[in-house]
Amino acid sequence: MRPEFTVKPIGIVRVSKTDEEVKNSWSGVEGFIEVFPEYAEGLEGLEGFSHIIVIAYLHKTSEEHRRVLRVRHRRLARLGVDPRLLPEVGVFATDSPHRPNPIAVTIVEVVELKENRIHVRGLDLFDGTPVLDIKPYTPSRVVPDVKTPKWYQKLQEVVTKTLGNRYEKPLEP
Amino acid sequence: MRPEFTVKPIGIVRVSKTDEEVKNSWSGVEGFIEVFPEYAEGLEGLEGFSHIIVIAYLHKTSEEHRRVLRVRHRRLARLGVDPRLLPEVGVFATDSPHRPNPIAVTIVEVVELKENRIHVRGLDLFDGTPVLDIKPYTPSRVVPDVKTPKWYQKLQEVVTKTLGNRYEKPLEP
Repeated sequence: MRPEFTVKPIGIVRVSKTDEEVKNSWSGVEGFIEVFPEYAEGLEGLEGFSHIIVIAYLHKTSEEHRRVLRVRHRRLARLGVDPRLLPEVGVFATDSPHRPNPIAVTIVEVVELKENRIHVRGLDLFDGTPVLDIKPYTPSRVVPDVKTPKWYQKLQEVVTKTLGNRYEKPLEP
Repeated sequence: MRPEFTVKPIGIVRVSKTDEEVKNSWSGVEGFIEVFPEYAEGLEGLEGFSHIIVIAYLHKTSEEHRRVLRVRHRRLARLGVDPRLLPEVGVFATDSPHRPNPIAVTIVEVVELKENRIHVRGLDLFDGTPVLDIKPYTPSRVVPDVKTPKWYQKLQEVVTKTLGNRYEKPLEP
């Protein structure tokens, strides 16, 4: 028997867009990370980081979604990419919300930090998404020479050809 | 009443170093991410990414650690930095393992992917740590112009002055 662990929200995502609008945004949306008052003390010292890493629990995924191990980047099809050009790959090679533990790791730009509310840009999370953790994006998170597989490069080319350079988010399924 | 969520390991960290050795390593250690056989299919397509993001549950933290909201970078004191130079900051402004949800987000370099074992470099996780998720480190994760607060820059200076450039990991408490 393998152990299980319990996690609890320390805050919540607030955006004034519908889920569909968030899904179809080119480079994420603007919004707020509202940290619950009892955790606000943990934000001390966060001001001045230009970017933060938001760890969230994708609460709208179902038990069935948690059994998915292979996906296609269907989101790109909705945005206009020919579905036949979308390869099927393992979930751990993608940012798919459908995965055994529906945990999102989103890097967002901080606009302003005011009390327990962080105004951010670049959110790809729905309104009401529970936030599990916040970490600063430090220079050590920057990998200077990232390499990606051929299938990913090819997909990136297809996306750029179809959508132009407007699509700035990771290639999400 | 706020909801809670259950997460389950999809794999485990294997390193042949003691916890102390991992804690005191300058730039993380070499080791393996062993994905449980029933999730191995999810790794399809991961080969060729030079780096991956490992999301792990820090199972050696206690309930008490989960109530911590302010920390000092004590790890740096152990490495030789004058403790009086370590500011106290909120956990969300640090990578402290003591935080409401002890979830680690570690970026590691992939040496080799072979069946369900990923040989990696740069691990700051103990042997036996449960892995919750793996995501590819894609170019979109690179923030070109990261800014950090003054306290962080000052701490970085102190660290460089004391330890030289050997210390490559994020400034961890």
